[in-house]
Formats: sequence, C-alpha cells, structure tokens
Amino acid sequence: MHHGYYNGTIQPVDQIGVGVFDLGLLRGYGLFDYFRTYNGRPFQWDWYWTRFQNSAMRMHLRLPLTKDQTYKIVMDLIGRSDFDDAAIRFVLTGGYSPDSISIVKPSLLIMTEDIHPVTPVQYEQGIRVILDDYVREMAEVKSTDYKHVILLAEAIRGARAQDVLYHKNGEISELSRSNFFIIKGQRLITPNRHILHGITRRTVMQLAQDDFEVEERPVLLSELYDADEAFTTSTTKRVLPIVEIGDLTIGEGKPGPKSKYLLERFDELVDSW
Amino acid sequence: MHHGYYNGTIQPVDQIGVGVFDLGLLRGYGLFDYFRTYNGRPFQWDWYWTRFQNSAMRMHLRLPLTKDQTYKIVMDLIGRSDFDDAAIRFVLTGGYSPDSISIVKPSLLIMTEDIHPVTPVQYEQGIRVILDDYVREMAEVKSTDYKHVILLAEAIRGARAQDVLYHKNGEISELSRSNFFIIKGQRLITPNRHILHGITRRTVMQLAQDDFEVEERPVLLSELYDADEAFTTSTTKRVLPIVEIGDLTIGEGKPGPKSKYLLERFDELVDSW
Repeated sequence: MHHGYYNGTIQPVDQIGVGVFDLGLLRGYGLFDYFRTYNGRPFQWDWYWTRFQNSAMRMHLRLPLTKDQTYKIVMDLIGRSDFDDAAIRFVLTGGYSPDSISIVKPSLLIMTEDIHPVTPVQYEQGIRVILDDYVREMAEVKSTDYKHVILLAEAIRGARAQDVLYHKNGEISELSRSNFFIIKGQRLITPNRHILHGITRRTVMQLAQDDFEVEERPVLLSELYDADEAFTTSTTKRVLPIVEIGDLTIGEGKPGPKSKYLLERFDELVDSW
Repeated sequence: MHHGYYNGTIQPVDQIGVGVFDLGLLRGYGLFDYFRTYNGRPFQWDWYWTRFQNSAMRMHLRLPLTKDQTYKIVMDLIGRSDFDDAAIRFVLTGGYSPDSISIVKPSLLIMTEDIHPVTPVQYEQGIRVILDDYVREMAEVKSTDYKHVILLAEAIRGARAQDVLYHKNGEISELSRSNFFIIKGQRLITPNRHILHGITRRTVMQLAQDDFEVEERPVLLSELYDADEAFTTSTTKRVLPIVEIGDLTIGEGKPGPKSKYLLERFDELVDSW
C-alpha cells in the first residue's frame, strides 16, 4: 500500500483527489520528478532535489516546502510503504485556478509507487527503438508533457520496439523518458542539448570517467552508423543496451561488453548505496 | 453552485476528485472543449460535439458516451446551476494508468462554470496583444497543452497587453485561446492552418458572408501593416477588437466600424438563439 502527501495531508494514494480546477489537469501545467530508493535510501537525493527546484523555477512555480521538509515527508512515506524499496514521484502543478489560466498557489503531490523494473531478458537481448523527428518543448524541464510518446504508442508496438529515439535537424536528443549514449572505441558519447538532464545519465558519466573518454556534445544521427554500442539510462532502466534503432542494427545486434561493464559499475554503486 | 459529471456520477464540482494516476495530470494527456448557453440553450451544440469527437479521435481516446447521452447530461447540469446561462467544460483525459504511460480507459469530466464575460470597456477600447514566435503542437486538437501561454503571463502583463498572437516563419496563426481576423476594405481574412478551428470563428465567417469577401488562408505577419481592423473571436470574447499588436497600431488605434458591425450581427444571433 502506498501513501501520498497532497497539499499538507498524508493519505493512502487511492484516497487522494485532485480538484477539477487544477491547472495540471486543465492546462497541462505541471512538472514532476521521479526517483527511487536503494537499501531504503533515496538515490542521489541532492541531485534530484536540485533538478526539481530548477524545473519549478523555470515554470514559475514556487515550491511550498523546503528541501528538509520534503526529505522528512519522503522518508515518512517510504516508512509507510510495505516494500524494501520504493519509487517516489513528485508532481508540482499550477494548482487551483479561479479563471482556469492564472497561477495562484501551486499544488504539490509526493507519493510512493511500486518500482517497475526492466525484465532481465531485456538486459540480455537489448531493446529496439524507433526513430521520430521530434524535439520536446523545454526538454530540460521535467514537465508533464508526454502527449507525443503516448500518441506514438501504437507505432512503437507496431514495430515491436520498446521506445522511441527523438531527433531533429539530423541531431539526436533522447528517448521518450530516458537518455541516450553511444560507445565508439573508448569514447562514451551523449547528447548535451534538447534533453532532460538525467540523474542516472550523470551518475553513469561519473562512473565512466576512469575508463572512457566522455564526450557530452551534439550527436548526429549519422554517427549511429559506426557506433559499437548504444544504451539508454534512466531510474528504472539503469544502463539498458539498445541493439536496433529504426532499420539499423547497432554493433553485433546484441548487448556489447562496454555497456555491460557500465551496468555492472552502476549496480555496484547502488548495492552499496 | 455548479455540478459536474465525472465517470458516471454527478456531484457538486468541489467534491469531485481526480485520481493521482490520471494521465491528464501525470502526462498532460487530455483534451477539452468549452461552450456556453444563450437563453439556456447550448450554443452551436452540433458543431461543438463534432469538434470534441474529432479531438478525441486524434488523441486515440474513445468517448465513453454518445452524443445523445452527453446532451442529456449537459442539460441536467445546466438545470442544476442557479444561473440563467452557464459555460460548460468537457475534459477528456487518458484516465487511470497502471504504469503511468499506457491508456486503459479515458476519463470524462463534464461541468458547468460561471461565464467570465469580457468587460464592456475592452469592447469600447479594444485590446492590446504581444507577438510571440511559437506554434502549438497539434493546434487543431483542443488539447490541454497551455504551458506556453501560462509561461508568457508575466510578459503579457509587463506589456500591459491582454493576450498574445502566435506566429512562426512569418505566418500568423492564432491568439493563445482564440482566433484571429483582419479586415482590409471589404475583405475579411483569417488564418486557415496551425489553428484551433473555433466555433465562434466559424459562426462569424458565416455571418460575414453577405457583406464581406471571406478569405481563409495563410496570413503573413507583414499583412498586419495595412490592415484596417483586427479582432479575435472565442466563446467568451465573441468579436473583440484588437488595436495594438506588439509595437504596431492597427488602423486608428480604436475599434473600427466593421468589427463593431460583426459583433452586432453576432449578438443578434445569440439573442435569438
């Protein structure tokens, strides 16, 4: 059973009701963040909080709680969950609006959720993604705007793919809800713009520093053709190999040794978190 | 007091609670429509229903009610409101999602609201709008995506303007929540693409047929320079003159006779609705 904090009150999540005049609902005006615990402790809490704060600032939403207050609530909610580890979702919206357009007082929801891990077979075989000519508006803000990928759901299923890789004007940005990396020799390359700056991405870049030359820069679609390996990173995906992108097979068409190596480094880090 | 229908139940609007796993809230995946009654009867009901149905189809959301069922609920809600006339809002979202991304069963909200009419002084003086280089994604679908205008709220207030006119690549589309027209001589000109096809827009075009040459086509920013008049149309604005666009004064800087004429025709129509 999961609980949630909503504007000052903690309740079981299925009892929380968001008012119909909330700008998150009426105008898509909201942002969120999502992280998880390892060994019961929120992973990279400082980084997540900073990102959440930045998103709120960019969307002109005042945070109703301080970092310490929020951390206490997060730990309270984790304590109430029946699981060893849980995911935590923050949702900050424009809140109740008297005229359905002006912001008066943002609404904050914090809740725990089940972790939906990626299946082991996906790590063993790698995933397939389709390509789509698109870039998210304000990609660097973790807004709730995911219309585009939901509209693409049928195309993804139809291609027996698991996700989509966005590109625009020949430049790659990110997957629908995770970051993108390629490996060429000892170079680890990841786009630096039109992306949400993932915390797992940042963690992996840090872990890779000793063994790779890490390049954070614009990445062209054409660079996929001679990539040895590709993978995606996110809270739930960790380091997940990508073996097909559109019609293109990456490397040998199966997860490569360097992606596996980075996944192992990541798993070592979280095991001792 | 207003009531709302939410997934099968009618309640006072302040008692309706939307679940925290609704894709409208978590993923901005929702669409809406908004219309009003005149003399207690929904204005242009057939047109609004058709548009709502089209928006739902474009967003792959199955409507849970037929047109007749919906009309009965609308009339029931209007009957419960204490007002001679009311606004009606439909909100259709992706609904509850087990994994916060897949659509299972859309949620439908129908509620009455107060009508917020434009003040008489705005019709007498006309309004000022700022310009912004932007085009809505899927503009022809009445999605809930209004992040952009909410982010612009400070810029609009700072310019002592009332709204924003969007343009992209030199071409005008629409205001943030209403359509745009210019008048040159006896020509009434309005953009035909990258817009939400407004019902008031359509009504005005129909009313204007006898007296104007109506042109529905791409409209360039540069055409503003020799426009005699400009106005915007929406359910709440009816035919509202625009007298300043960015740094440009339109015509004499006050509402022109042809905009007033069209407003009068519109008011005659709704008086006898």
